Amino acid sequence: MAYLFSKKVSALKPSAIREILKYSSDPTVISLAAGNPAPDAFPVDAVRSISASILQDTPIAALQYSITEGYPPLREKLKEQLKKDGCFDPETDDLIITSGAQQANELSAKVLCDDGDTILCEAPSFIGSLNAFKSYDVNLVGVDLDEDGINIEKLEQALKTEKSVKLLYLIPNFQNPTGLTTSLEKRKAVYELAKKYNIGILEDNPYGDLRFAGEDIPPIKSLDTEGRVIYSRTFSKVLAPGIRVGYVSAPKDIISKVIVCKQVSDVHTNIWGQMLTDKFLEQTDMTKHFACLREIYKRKCSLMIKGIEDNFSSAVSFTRPEGGLFIWCTLPENCNMQEFCTRAVRDYKVAVVPGNAFLVNENTPTTSFRLNFSTPSDKQIVKGCELLGKLSKEMFGE
Amino acid sequence: MAYLFSKKVSALKPSAIREILKYSSDPTVISLAAGNPAPDAFPVDAVRSISASILQDTPIAALQYSITEGYPPLREKLKEQLKKDGCFDPETDDLIITSGAQQANELSAKVLCDDGDTILCEAPSFIGSLNAFKSYDVNLVGVDLDEDGINIEKLEQALKTEKSVKLLYLIPNFQNPTGLTTSLEKRKAVYELAKKYNIGILEDNPYGDLRFAGEDIPPIKSLDTEGRVIYSRTFSKVLAPGIRVGYVSAPKDIISKVIVCKQVSDVHTNIWGQMLTDKFLEQTDMTKHFACLREIYKRKCSLMIKGIEDNFSSAVSFTRPEGGLFIWCTLPENCNMQEFCTRAVRDYKVAVVPGNAFLVNENTPTTSFRLNFSTPSDKQIVKGCELLGKLSKEMFGE
Repeated sequence: MAYLFSKKVSALKPSAIREILKYSSDPTVISLAAGNPAPDAFPVDAVRSISASILQDTPIAALQYSITEGYPPLREKLKEQLKKDGCFDPETDDLIITSGAQQANELSAKVLCDDGDTILCEAPSFIGSLNAFKSYDVNLVGVDLDEDGINIEKLEQALKTEKSVKLLYLIPNFQNPTGLTTSLEKRKAVYELAKKYNIGILEDNPYGDLRFAGEDIPPIKSLDTEGRVIYSRTFSKVLAPGIRVGYVSAPKDIISKVIVCKQVSDVHTNIWGQMLTDKFLEQTDMTKHFACLREIYKRKCSLMIKGIEDNFSSAVSFTRPEGGLFIWCTLPENCNMQEFCTRAVRDYKVAVVPGNAFLVNENTPTTSFRLNFSTPSDKQIVKGCELLGKLSKEMFGE
Repeated sequence: MAYLFSKKVSALKPSAIREILKYSSDPTVISLAAGNPAPDAFPVDAVRSISASILQDTPIAALQYSITEGYPPLREKLKEQLKKDGCFDPETDDLIITSGAQQANELSAKVLCDDGDTILCEAPSFIGSLNAFKSYDVNLVGVDLDEDGINIEKLEQALKTEKSVKLLYLIPNFQNPTGLTTSLEKRKAVYELAKKYNIGILEDNPYGDLRFAGEDIPPIKSLDTEGRVIYSRTFSKVLAPGIRVGYVSAPKDIISKVIVCKQVSDVHTNIWGQMLTDKFLEQTDMTKHFACLREIYKRKCSLMIKGIEDNFSSAVSFTRPEGGLFIWCTLPENCNMQEFCTRAVRDYKVAVVPGNAFLVNENTPTTSFRLNFSTPSDKQIVKGCELLGKLSKEMFGE
């Protein structure tokens, strides 16, 4: 029979990134296109011993159904940590464990948005969240991103003109895909605008613990005096993404709706993964662990920046992230970026992600592309930059 | 700030069952209200040794991001098994691993239903699925259930009168909450009606491997010659629910949409859980494993039926399931079932689930309630039946 698909899902396309990831199975391709954390950053020994003790000491708890809200000791630890960071008020806020931050962001949209409501986001932004929002048939509107965060004038313009704006979606730290960080001034300005136009903010902070340069900047959530900010985080980048453990904190009435939606989505997050995360937090000197991760990412980022400086055509500009996983490169105006990306993977066997993949409308012209430095080996970073450099000089001169 | 919630989510209430589960933390309450598999059915030793070998041999694969479709070796095994069961045609069907069958059912609704489209279901039916459907603002319509499955006349009536019917949701084996099984004749009749009115069938089969009496009946999926049936299954009842591993097979174009929706929902299912399931299937004599599970469930079911026969007022009728986890009890017509359930937990410290929790509209009058025999210990089953029996005689005489 011919099925009729729902309107909201008919328009959805698979993420361009995950499609490109499939090229990675070609062992001759150097992939700078992924967004995976560095495998050498996984605390494999700790995972082994913690997992063994969980399955030895409390096997039934690790295998039986659990509650939707999440493993209670883990929830308490996270609340405690967020409170220390000025991001959680036990009087007004609650917290739920989700199956990655992806689920936190998806359920936030489901809880707040009817068909046709507007979500504003940075342009470019994280494709996984954009597609999650689209899957609820919202009016998704991108607002240009400056070096120091979203463009405030354009944001206010959008707040004035778009109908029924419910949420502003932001990744203030080492943004995906640009690597850019929103300044404190801009965080404050954004919050004031959200107040003025009475909208919520969905602050996604997957990379916040991976700052390897500059000074920490307080999350927008810590400036929130009115329960306006939904704050989602994940263990994907600081423990392991395969366990799918994230969390979201927000005013209690929002979390109570997210709980109901999560219950019908997957009942609860894999409980072994939650217990593993809980014990990892308990047994690990997290300051030391973060320092160790930052060392890895700092080295890889520096290596890639050196590779770009040494090899790329001077016509290519790029961001210098203070943390996270990504560098954003921009080719000369009006050039054919798609041709560059296609020739990169076809002729030079280096995969990058074309910048339009991160836009609300993939047909919007852009000459940027994303590079990832966390997944490839050091050798692949060096070689990949050499090859991309060669292509860039071929297309745009020295 | 005061948030405005989306229409679809505003109407959703937390599942009555999971709310009742919270009483289980009172150690003096005997809970016959859960739906958890028997803890002594968990293959704890196998899980321990398989998990250890996964984390020893392939730690990075078990911790890194994976593909949305699911762990390839597991997908292949499941396709192979379904093919043997006559439930998978490699030419036309595909299969995706989901975070429990809950996600399979939720995403099926998301993929196929716009606001206001109709899903028909058995009345009563599994509350988790009903709420998942409601969370997409569908017109959910219950059709009465007879001893041998859904009432065919009423089903056709609903197909004639309800607008834009997209799916019929059925649990043909040892249904939750009634324990009833749909006969082969009725499965055929249901399929013919689906054909006549050109609708899809979502066949949910979580308990199929737990048949402890009678003969296996072919799934509706095995009768499907037109790609009309979406078939969802889970490892929650035959391995462990805490790992959240389920799967759904359906025509390729449906699965491709489910993949896109799963990608925005949680990227992929916890990969350790998928690898564990894969290795468990590989290393285990599943015929023997199922036989062992059936032995446990048969004993517990018999014990509960004996407890009911020995203790309950003769005014209470009940089903005699051939598998699964549940018995459905019905009090005399026009009695106050809510009073019975409330007095049971308050005065006799035995929790059961009021039958209206399983109806599309909880205000529909019913005098039934659900008993679960898989989660309580043998002792709790005996004692629980004695106490409920006492109450039943108090309220309805010998």
